[in-house]
Amino acid sequence: MTENVTALLSTPSPVSILPKYLRAARGESLETPPVWLMRQAGRYLPEYRAVREQHGFLDVCYTPELACEVTLQPIRRFGFDAAILFSDILLLAIPLGAGLRFDSGHGPVIEKPVRTQQDVANLHDFEPREKLAEVLSAVKLIRAELPADKALIGFAGAPFTVATYLVEGRKPDPFKNTKSLMYADPASFAALMERLTSLTISYLRAQVEAGADALQLFDTWGGILTDEEYRRCNLPYLQRIFSELKDLGVPLTYFVLNGMHLYSASQVGATVYGLDWRMTFEQARARFGEHAALQGNFDPVLLLTDEQTIRRRARKILEDAGTHGHIFNLGHGILPDTPIEHVEALLDEIRGGRA
Amino acid sequence: MTENVTALLSTPSPVSILPKYLRAARGESLETPPVWLMRQAGRYLPEYRAVREQHGFLDVCYTPELACEVTLQPIRRFGFDAAILFSDILLLAIPLGAGLRFDSGHGPVIEKPVRTQQDVANLHDFEPREKLAEVLSAVKLIRAELPADKALIGFAGAPFTVATYLVEGRKPDPFKNTKSLMYADPASFAALMERLTSLTISYLRAQVEAGADALQLFDTWGGILTDEEYRRCNLPYLQRIFSELKDLGVPLTYFVLNGMHLYSASQVGATVYGLDWRMTFEQARARFGEHAALQGNFDPVLLLTDEQTIRRRARKILEDAGTHGHIFNLGHGILPDTPIEHVEALLDEIRGGRA
Repeated sequence: MTENVTALLSTPSPVSILPKYLRAARGESLETPPVWLMRQAGRYLPEYRAVREQHGFLDVCYTPELACEVTLQPIRRFGFDAAILFSDILLLAIPLGAGLRFDSGHGPVIEKPVRTQQDVANLHDFEPREKLAEVLSAVKLIRAELPADKALIGFAGAPFTVATYLVEGRKPDPFKNTKSLMYADPASFAALMERLTSLTISYLRAQVEAGADALQLFDTWGGILTDEEYRRCNLPYLQRIFSELKDLGVPLTYFVLNGMHLYSASQVGATVYGLDWRMTFEQARARFGEHAALQGNFDPVLLLTDEQTIRRRARKILEDAGTHGHIFNLGHGILPDTPIEHVEALLDEIRGGRA
Repeated sequence: MTENVTALLSTPSPVSILPKYLRAARGESLETPPVWLMRQAGRYLPEYRAVREQHGFLDVCYTPELACEVTLQPIRRFGFDAAILFSDILLLAIPLGAGLRFDSGHGPVIEKPVRTQQDVANLHDFEPREKLAEVLSAVKLIRAELPADKALIGFAGAPFTVATYLVEGRKPDPFKNTKSLMYADPASFAALMERLTSLTISYLRAQVEAGADALQLFDTWGGILTDEEYRRCNLPYLQRIFSELKDLGVPLTYFVLNGMHLYSASQVGATVYGLDWRMTFEQARARFGEHAALQGNFDPVLLLTDEQTIRRRARKILEDAGTHGHIFNLGHGILPDTPIEHVEALLDEIRGGRA
């Protein structure tokens, strides 16, 4: 595998001036797809765990040097085609005044959940360029450190997904408070969504100004909605985000988990769509059109099985995805107990199989 | 509402000798659909909580009088058209030798998870008529106590769903051990599925012999599979169950949560299909055919909102489902904090709207 990476890095052909990730995101046909993995900077890496032994999760997010270090770790080790900013979709809860902490084992906790009209009105207005300045400094630093042939992906949570956390306070399942607010007080829910949408637009715009080459919007919980609810309470905000960011000229990826039933997700206006493992490439091409690039579909749990299974599944994805507009990725974040050798086997199959 | 129930119960017309649930399950067209709710015997009922203050969950399952009492509680209070045996899909873990306990707040725990060929081989053979005799006595008792116009539904977990619990040991998400076994040792996984399938068939058959009027198979976790995996590792066992139980002549319901992407679920051979809230009736009719009866689709979280929302959503379902072959139900189990008055409003809308 190392030989392949070296070969790719050391013999840039004239067409490869643009990072492979960006070429695939534009729909170009490549011999092998670019590859990165959701949560690639994370607990499965010993070098990440070493940093986290010294620093809390939020410390890493808010210290540009540390965020840069962990963002680059998987690029150094695996030569992924894209780095993704090490950050969290809930950071904006802090300047919003809702508070955020991470309880070990329980994930994020919003200290003052947002459940009433008054709670929504009490949220602070802020300018991401000021209140999330450390994150933007991290973007700048990472872009400066990252090799030119690697793309840097900035990101944010989709407003609906961020709203579910803000409203529920903890891991949102089964989304009781969110749906109650949505139905019992649609105006307040819409007001919250409006606030988050405007913030998300400024924040993502600032990330590109700081050096991000591409943007991804994570809609982890969009799939709890029916298609009708999604069209009414989620889609308009997503459309606004993608349409207002269009002038940036960078690839815009939309990833919704468990969204097979969300037919209207094809109308968000993204340039790249992320698939979880439930939606096949054939279904995604039919739904999102031939011009959209596609990324994802490899079930992260399979990275825990064995090399043969991993290689077989990777080959199937390479066949199914076709060569144009394909970015290799998982269908959800890489699991903390994924063995390093399994990631190596996956990359070897992706790069070696058709290299 | 009380008047309507009384009217229905006291003036049986010649056609209503068969419980309304069974008529709808056969595809008959009724003026108002029969209604029952998944987990209708549960924590949202004060009379259920009173029983549980005195008795543990497994005690209730294994004591026919108690199981009968809690099964009938929601029928007495709400006049639902069907009672569902109070039991648990994991009871068979005990005679299998895998052990089962319920940790408060953490749900079921399998004491000896089943993860290797040896673990599968070590499972005990047993005859449900002997080792689950108390459950079958409960069925008998409930059928004797239940009014003739109410149907009694027996049930079991789908083998795949039971397997995920046996393999994981705890709440299965993200199903690491299950998928690892499925891929790394498909023969052992198939052996486990075979064992569970045969057991499920005997167990369900025994429930009908004891008095159940209908059967439902709960496949809570079938939706974690891709359609391809489902077709290979789940469908054949489901087909065997439904085909071997056909001669019983009772309605057979298949409910898979989050199964929008499982196109092959239409081939299991059930007579009734349960929908979660993601799949619309229109999509379900297209997928399962005009002859299958349909049940479900009301998002249980909506029962926490307000009366107006509940009534509006119920009316929409009555419109969408049409009159033939429709059993009103939720898209998943009723939540413990559901207010009683909200259930009453739902029933009033279903019964009163077109009664």
